[in-house]
Amino acid sequence: MGNTFGKIFKLSSFGESHGTAIGGIIDGCPAGLKIDFDFINKQLKRRRPGQSKLTSSRNESDNVEFLSGIFNEITTGTPIGFVIKNKDHKSEDYDSLKNTYRPSHADFTYDKKYGIRDYRGGGRSSARETAIRVVAGAIAQLLLTKLGVSIFAYVSKVKNIKLEKSYLDLDLSKIDDNSLRCPDEEKAKEMMSLINNVKNYGDTVGGVVSAVAKGVPPGWGEPVFDKLHADLAKAMLSINAVKGFNYGLIQTELLGSEVNDIILDYDGNTKSNNSGGIQGGISNGNDIYFSVDFKPVATIMKPQESINNNGDKVLINTSGRHDSCVLPRAVPIVEAMTALVLVDHYLRSKTNKI
Amino acid sequence: MGNTFGKIFKLSSFGESHGTAIGGIIDGCPAGLKIDFDFINKQLKRRRPGQSKLTSSRNESDNVEFLSGIFNEITTGTPIGFVIKNKDHKSEDYDSLKNTYRPSHADFTYDKKYGIRDYRGGGRSSARETAIRVVAGAIAQLLLTKLGVSIFAYVSKVKNIKLEKSYLDLDLSKIDDNSLRCPDEEKAKEMMSLINNVKNYGDTVGGVVSAVAKGVPPGWGEPVFDKLHADLAKAMLSINAVKGFNYGLIQTELLGSEVNDIILDYDGNTKSNNSGGIQGGISNGNDIYFSVDFKPVATIMKPQESINNNGDKVLINTSGRHDSCVLPRAVPIVEAMTALVLVDHYLRSKTNKI
Amino acid sequence: MGNTFGKIFKLSSFGESHGTAIGGIIDGCPAGLKIDFDFINKQLKRRRPGQSKLTSSRNESDNVEFLSGIFNEITTGTPIGFVIKNKDHKSEDYDSLKNTYRPSHADFTYDKKYGIRDYRGGGRSSARETAIRVVAGAIAQLLLTKLGVSIFAYVSKVKNIKLEKSYLDLDLSKIDDNSLRCPDEEKAKEMMSLINNVKNYGDTVGGVVSAVAKGVPPGWGEPVFDKLHADLAKAMLSINAVKGFNYGLIQTELLGSEVNDIILDYDGNTKSNNSGGIQGGISNGNDIYFSVDFKPVATIMKPQESINNNGDKVLINTSGRHDSCVLPRAVPIVEAMTALVLVDHYLRSKTNKI
Amino acid sequence: MGNTFGKIFKLSSFGESHGTAIGGIIDGCPAGLKIDFDFINKQLKRRRPGQSKLTSSRNESDNVEFLSGIFNEITTGTPIGFVIKNKDHKSEDYDSLKNTYRPSHADFTYDKKYGIRDYRGGGRSSARETAIRVVAGAIAQLLLTKLGVSIFAYVSKVKNIKLEKSYLDLDLSKIDDNSLRCPDEEKAKEMMSLINNVKNYGDTVGGVVSAVAKGVPPGWGEPVFDKLHADLAKAMLSINAVKGFNYGLIQTELLGSEVNDIILDYDGNTKSNNSGGIQGGISNGNDIYFSVDFKPVATIMKPQESINNNGDKVLINTSGRHDSCVLPRAVPIVEAMTALVLVDHYLRSKTNKI
Repeated sequence: MGNTFGKIFKLSSFGESHGTAIGGIIDGCPAGLKIDFDFINKQLKRRRPGQSKLTSSRNESDNVEFLSGIFNEITTGTPIGFVIKNKDHKSEDYDSLKNTYRPSHADFTYDKKYGIRDYRGGGRSSARETAIRVVAGAIAQLLLTKLGVSIFAYVSKVKNIKLEKSYLDLDLSKIDDNSLRCPDEEKAKEMMSLINNVKNYGDTVGGVVSAVAKGVPPGWGEPVFDKLHADLAKAMLSINAVKGFNYGLIQTELLGSEVNDIILDYDGNTKSNNSGGIQGGISNGNDIYFSVDFKPVATIMKPQESINNNGDKVLINTSGRHDSCVLPRAVPIVEAMTALVLVDHYLRSKTNKI
Repeated sequence: MGNTFGKIFKLSSFGESHGTAIGGIIDGCPAGLKIDFDFINKQLKRRRPGQSKLTSSRNESDNVEFLSGIFNEITTGTPIGFVIKNKDHKSEDYDSLKNTYRPSHADFTYDKKYGIRDYRGGGRSSARETAIRVVAGAIAQLLLTKLGVSIFAYVSKVKNIKLEKSYLDLDLSKIDDNSLRCPDEEKAKEMMSLINNVKNYGDTVGGVVSAVAKGVPPGWGEPVFDKLHADLAKAMLSINAVKGFNYGLIQTELLGSEVNDIILDYDGNTKSNNSGGIQGGISNGNDIYFSVDFKPVATIMKPQESINNNGDKVLINTSGRHDSCVLPRAVPIVEAMTALVLVDHYLRSKTNKI
Repeated sequence: MGNTFGKIFKLSSFGESHGTAIGGIIDGCPAGLKIDFDFINKQLKRRRPGQSKLTSSRNESDNVEFLSGIFNEITTGTPIGFVIKNKDHKSEDYDSLKNTYRPSHADFTYDKKYGIRDYRGGGRSSARETAIRVVAGAIAQLLLTKLGVSIFAYVSKVKNIKLEKSYLDLDLSKIDDNSLRCPDEEKAKEMMSLINNVKNYGDTVGGVVSAVAKGVPPGWGEPVFDKLHADLAKAMLSINAVKGFNYGLIQTELLGSEVNDIILDYDGNTKSNNSGGIQGGISNGNDIYFSVDFKPVATIMKPQESINNNGDKVLINTSGRHDSCVLPRAVPIVEAMTALVLVDHYLRSKTNKI
Repeated sequence: MGNTFGKIFKLSSFGESHGTAIGGIIDGCPAGLKIDFDFINKQLKRRRPGQSKLTSSRNESDNVEFLSGIFNEITTGTPIGFVIKNKDHKSEDYDSLKNTYRPSHADFTYDKKYGIRDYRGGGRSSARETAIRVVAGAIAQLLLTKLGVSIFAYVSKVKNIKLEKSYLDLDLSKIDDNSLRCPDEEKAKEMMSLINNVKNYGDTVGGVVSAVAKGVPPGWGEPVFDKLHADLAKAMLSINAVKGFNYGLIQTELLGSEVNDIILDYDGNTKSNNSGGIQGGISNGNDIYFSVDFKPVATIMKPQESINNNGDKVLINTSGRHDSCVLPRAVPIVEAMTALVLVDHYLRSKTNKI
């Protein structure tokens, strides 16, 4: 259970890191959408390992093959099935982990839950499955683009180096100008230098990805449980290594009189946008912005104590090719999950009024 | 749409603030659970307004009436229907707001979404609906108690006054010793003093509620979208005025080697619990802890500019009886939503293995 | 589980026959629908016992009280909560059945499933819960009427007396001209005479309700599992005492060349309508027609052997006030369930195309 | 929408008849189930075309490839993804149908619903997708077998030739002894002779598939909407060409006193089983039996009038390789859908009691 996301535009996902393939089904994509395969591949490339010195040197080409639901490059309204073959197997890297539980990994919990696990490359708990989200999210983005909605995510913090500027003061067209995907060139350099440093020590580092959705009209989001920001929170927290989410201005230390957004006109323009574009769980027409906290990835290149499934103490020396900082690769995943939430609520909103 | 929470233990909710009644249906509660009505009423009292000087002076008695699904005080496995009548109507307080949109409230977005709204007391967007969550959450807690799970929430920050201690260094039995529900008496006094100060100025203030669930066994939570912490995040963000969620130790500024939790034995005991009791979306047997950020409530007792539904500028002077700080009343709501998530995942986990 | 019907227009239901009340929540009803309370009450009256000599002499007035989601007689898009109090309790009628299992009733299966049951009046398994369906179905019908869809159900067979005429040869405006709800006066008299005869012997009798939906446009219904007729089948079989469903012309004994419907024009007009208005699970614009088989109700006024929960043999002598033939009262229930299916698929169809 | 079946054991399906592949995802299959690939392939062979002279001469080998969720032949609890490539394309057979609407086919309704359709081989509306159901159903059957549940389906009627015997008087081990899958050799011969006759005239013929599930314990099925037989009805009606469903003894013409099942002991043994093993939507431990009505398939080898998408009249001469009677191939599909319903309700029943 738990491998389907969305109520109308639904993504179901399958696949282990080192199995035959990963894949998905999108059910509920409206008919008549032109598919831009280049865009999908571009998003996949932004996620894949081996794209820069910053990320893992694994070279997974992530060729997505569409099997149904698209006819002459147009969606037909029927389910879109797709697979990505797993090509670059180095399962032997993981043989040593067959019976051991890596610290802060899901090895132990999968074993306890299911009594069996595919230990190769983390199996289902590997972030490899996020490639499926990126494919589906890209299709969602194609639909949103037609509606005038655009989504931007970028790295805004790495360890203690923080981009203090608001997204309003950044040139979001520059996000991909550096391999870190931070649109402030100076901060980006600092952050990349820090990551390389950490990498040399075999350690890992976390940070924050910020995101903004522009052009969302008023009326998306459903009271009371499926608030737009509640679904965004779930979407983000479902991404590997995410520990926190907040949207709009951080207000825990401010007064109501300081943060209330004065409405200026019936179109919903406001003097400020501290609310982050959502009121009562429903979009109000302003930019939706939020940030997503990532922990340092658990796989470090240093020896660590642990136990095996006999309960014996073991020392884990990780080999393999791993990321010291997943943030640049997380950017397209955050965009994808944002798109999945928004497109689903767009479709839901079509049934709100007679 | 969007008024049902959970996959197996499902709460459906209805009701406007000043309508005839609010209520709910719990479908999926297992048969054979003894209902402790005193506990349910106790939780409702902790949520209701008028319980202390800190909160709104509205006096809603919140008498829940159970209509089905319980026979001789035992659940029968059939849906539990219940209602709470709305007694203390002062709808005339809101007549002036019939055609105006309060800043940072959901008035505008409901109008845009539905073309119609029950403006009395905020209608469906009022936090009054959280009483329904508290009823259902209390029933969930009764079941969890039988499983050895206990849930604690408390106020850990009000504006800039923060309780720095970990929950491990607090006496959680003291949470209700003061009306703020902060188990550190000294900090509580500081926070209460601040709230009263803010209240005198007609302003409002936010903060943080922290929560911990003890006794959750390994194996609750579903990969990949319905991760236990993803469902907790959604649950928390669905509460009125919540802006952020994070679980476990805040790790954005730390190294992987600093935060990884070394596993000590096959029962899942770990040297540290920075992960917050969840790995790969599945509980690992350790305490689950998280914190929830609340904004200052939007209703302030100061004049504010806004517009009406003609687009004309108006000045809003709020009367009525409102909270300056919702945090003490939010504590049982956070507990309730935590319980709903946990009991749902407990039931889901029963189908994981043959 | 299992007490919610529909994907977008969702009815959740609660309540036992002799508990405090039965009730429901409709989530997903679009905003802006004018509620005709007289129509709802009319449908409830058509379902309630005691309406004619043909049916049970129990006099349940079935006053529905709406608690939310309707403001100034217009739906607001928020959940519509409603209850019907259980007034005419004669629980003592059932005390003798506390520990015994009536033949062909759900007493035994509820006990086996849940280990506990509310035995009074059949509890949750009583057909009393269908009043909730009728309320929700009536609201669905109000929306469908605005779309030009009309639904008719009528009794077409009682035991071996069968109305051979097609619905096309009947005057459907005459359905309520007799208390049996069979629009052919002559057949109706025969059937009523048979029912009275059976009643005198303390026995019960089943039959068939036929239904037709006119004005459904092409395009409602979803491949491949949620075919329009598959959802109709489920809806009908979920009604108490229903054993069978078929739609369109019964074709098991015919050749393909005899039954294929020749399409005449691009509006979807066809030479014949043997398909019953649905192709591949999707409406084609023609009348949708189907029939629903009811068994004789299990409660007979004759002594029957059975066992108690000690496994001892007992003799059951049923008192109480029961129907000899439920078909006339089933007519509005069939209409209601038809409306729930159609309105749900109407709303789903709104998201099919960009 | 509408391409997912089940609540806990969920099958999501994709694929068009002549696209790249068809496939599915099973989410919610418990971990620890040994997969018998031979059994899956056997069931696929029973469904595939070209298996005997009775069925279509298309030779689709239906090789299923499993991509995830199974490790060392054991299910891991993670989603089971699988695909069947479409090999034997003769899309040119359908080019003539690109702009025309075949009588009693879904061509017209897909066009009206989606504004676009993959016309090759019927696209999504082709019965080819039922191969996916057979794969998933076979896995469900493997789990049910471990629980002592066995499922049998067989052809009980072809046009006017009917097998009058009850399943109790048949040797169900002989179902596959003839290519029609009717366990009465004599009747089978008559039926096959009739089919061959019909085939020679280019016509098609329908009939009935009967099914029985043995060994289902008491307690499966959920009141009130998800009654076990309601879900079976939906499952069966979702199969291509199915028009009707009924379960237990057909009782419309009988008296209550004639059909009530006298309970003999606390294990649920009854004097008769007219109820068909289900009371109040919940299994009672007796055999569950039902029958499924199939229409003659719409594709006949005779010229038929129709229209094209300009509304012009056209004459359709079908070539291609088609079934004159789908019943023998429908047998494993009926078994598969039965298994999907039962296994889902088994898993749901695990959460009914504390």
